[in-house]
Amino acid sequence: MIADRLKNINKSIIRQIFDSAPPNAINMGLGEIQFNTPNIVKLKAKKAINQNEIYYTPNAGLTELREAVANYYNKQNMQSISFKNTCIFNGAQEAIFSVLFSILNPDDELIITDPTFLAYKTIAAMFGASTKTFPLDSSKAFSFDIKQLEEQITQKTKAVFLNHPANPTGKAFSEKDIKEISNLCKKHNIILIADEVYIELYLKKPIPSFWGHYDNTVIISGLSKSHCMTGWRIGWVVAKEELLEKFIVAHQYISTCVSPITQKAAIAALSEKGMETIKSLRKRLIKNYNIATQYLKNHITYEAEVAPYLMIKIKDDDITFCKQLAQKGLIVMPGSAFGKESQGFIRINYALNEKKLRMGLKILLKNLT
Amino acid sequence: MIADRLKNINKSIIRQIFDSAPPNAINMGLGEIQFNTPNIVKLKAKKAINQNEIYYTPNAGLTELREAVANYYNKQNMQSISFKNTCIFNGAQEAIFSVLFSILNPDDELIITDPTFLAYKTIAAMFGASTKTFPLDSSKAFSFDIKQLEEQITQKTKAVFLNHPANPTGKAFSEKDIKEISNLCKKHNIILIADEVYIELYLKKPIPSFWGHYDNTVIISGLSKSHCMTGWRIGWVVAKEELLEKFIVAHQYISTCVSPITQKAAIAALSEKGMETIKSLRKRLIKNYNIATQYLKNHITYEAEVAPYLMIKIKDDDITFCKQLAQKGLIVMPGSAFGKESQGFIRINYALNEKKLRMGLKILLKNLT
Repeated sequence: MIADRLKNINKSIIRQIFDSAPPNAINMGLGEIQFNTPNIVKLKAKKAINQNEIYYTPNAGLTELREAVANYYNKQNMQSISFKNTCIFNGAQEAIFSVLFSILNPDDELIITDPTFLAYKTIAAMFGASTKTFPLDSSKAFSFDIKQLEEQITQKTKAVFLNHPANPTGKAFSEKDIKEISNLCKKHNIILIADEVYIELYLKKPIPSFWGHYDNTVIISGLSKSHCMTGWRIGWVVAKEELLEKFIVAHQYISTCVSPITQKAAIAALSEKGMETIKSLRKRLIKNYNIATQYLKNHITYEAEVAPYLMIKIKDDDITFCKQLAQKGLIVMPGSAFGKESQGFIRINYALNEKKLRMGLKILLKNLT
Repeated sequence: MIADRLKNINKSIIRQIFDSAPPNAINMGLGEIQFNTPNIVKLKAKKAINQNEIYYTPNAGLTELREAVANYYNKQNMQSISFKNTCIFNGAQEAIFSVLFSILNPDDELIITDPTFLAYKTIAAMFGASTKTFPLDSSKAFSFDIKQLEEQITQKTKAVFLNHPANPTGKAFSEKDIKEISNLCKKHNIILIADEVYIELYLKKPIPSFWGHYDNTVIISGLSKSHCMTGWRIGWVVAKEELLEKFIVAHQYISTCVSPITQKAAIAALSEKGMETIKSLRKRLIKNYNIATQYLKNHITYEAEVAPYLMIKIKDDDITFCKQLAQKGLIVMPGSAFGKESQGFIRINYALNEKKLRMGLKILLKNLT
């Protein structure tokens, strides 16, 4: 009785590993920043609850929040956009789903990196589209060659979907890369989608956005990582109005709107004071990064640019390794889950409290041969 | 650049009417209960914010909430279900989308009533499925004939999707209807989906659920109406595990999970004290129903069984009437938006504060000829 699109979608490796871990396992697996949401955000949410009026908002979101999102991009970029270029979603996940739902026909092709976030390929497959990949070369610090991207473009290519900065590598595209990729997409008239949800978590220097280089660029982002708001489910899309209008229609039929409690909290997060909180978050992440790299110094093969991921080269089969480690009380992710290039690596997330982090790293180190 | 599935989806009549109304218009249009969320729910949400841990929950929802949902059905029914038969969604809307996404192949047929909630047909069309309708006869108090339902069943029929109690009519299926429809679906081996989000808002006597009569029944419901929680985005699905597992996969890729703030608030809503609040809500709705029917006594053609909708027969074209009324500061919905059978009717929602309700009814009455 199930539609064909879901017939081959089964329990992911990640879920299998999770389920095999004891309940008190240290979680260095999921893509969460395991710190508390800033007080300014929580206070605004409680105020919104006290003020009632927790009704439907416009499908695309509260205008004040959409303006705050537009301003966030306008501050970094010469190109001026308005709230009409933004739509608020239930997390970046719903944004990813809605954008692909809005653009992919069966038999379209989507180009992604190898490795990358798992969901892009799975969602594309649900719509009958196929994915082609170009490598982020694991032997060259997960860097890429634009020729290998261009080789994947065919008449059927609808879009290139990048995670920038990237899960699972913690690497970002440079300003030069961004211009080259944007120009390439322009040349072939294909949509360029950049999921930038990690962009604020840089370790050394700010990461430039893909926004503002090419008309058919779609930016997906949100506050899950920058404001430790994974559970709040708040994301957005920025695009030209012609595309955005269709994303709003998709969002309307998928989930109507985002809770105004979360939306008002997000307005506080994007305020000047709310954005200040990212500085202390970064400090904490850099401290954890230094701890992790100190423990793992003999196993690191490249330098990450953003938190919270590190990829560690291991000698064993990565899936077996992660399954065994989970049973010993530490959850980390196998590189194989993200692509072929990351096979033989494991991904660790070091954004958890220092005591647990050190405990986790000790367990990990003991099991690395 | 847009996928074919969205090409013919345009701004709905409802949205057109909304946009033509002045900002201070009285809203008797949208399907909201315009009262405050009960304090017990708001307190629990604020407590959840204070306690932090606002992280991802399992995709299907917090076990405690899923158990509360299962108990809600177990109290009304002999058939005992567990939390494994439930999944928590971002509102009933995401549940509707996810269920149809999970079951409909292109060229499948979905049977709905005429009139009914707009989204079922639109979403089915997005998946390449077509809808067939059977009438709720407007000349017979929007009652139905099971033969007319059976006539619509073909080899291609995947499911029957009912709104019970019904938007826009405020009528419900009887225990006898429920048994007949369940048996019919069983006979033809098709899925029976019942969106029961209005079920707690009965005016005179409790409405029985479709749950428990047939193995392939899927119940969609939520707290938007029963606890004035439209803005919180909380809904659920109840089904046998074999189907439910696929709905959870869909939900995972669509939006990951529902905010734990909302989920914890929902646990409070489903507690004994939380369920008590529905009694005072019903009192208030019955009072408003009596006010509305008093004003409109010369225009009512049937008796509604649940709040908050009334359908009024008018003499003019309903769309023109609603557009003109919106410009005069009152938003109501044209029956045509819901189907052919409701053409020539308007739908009003009387769940707003009494002062505004009386103002709205006066404007309406002045314009009814």
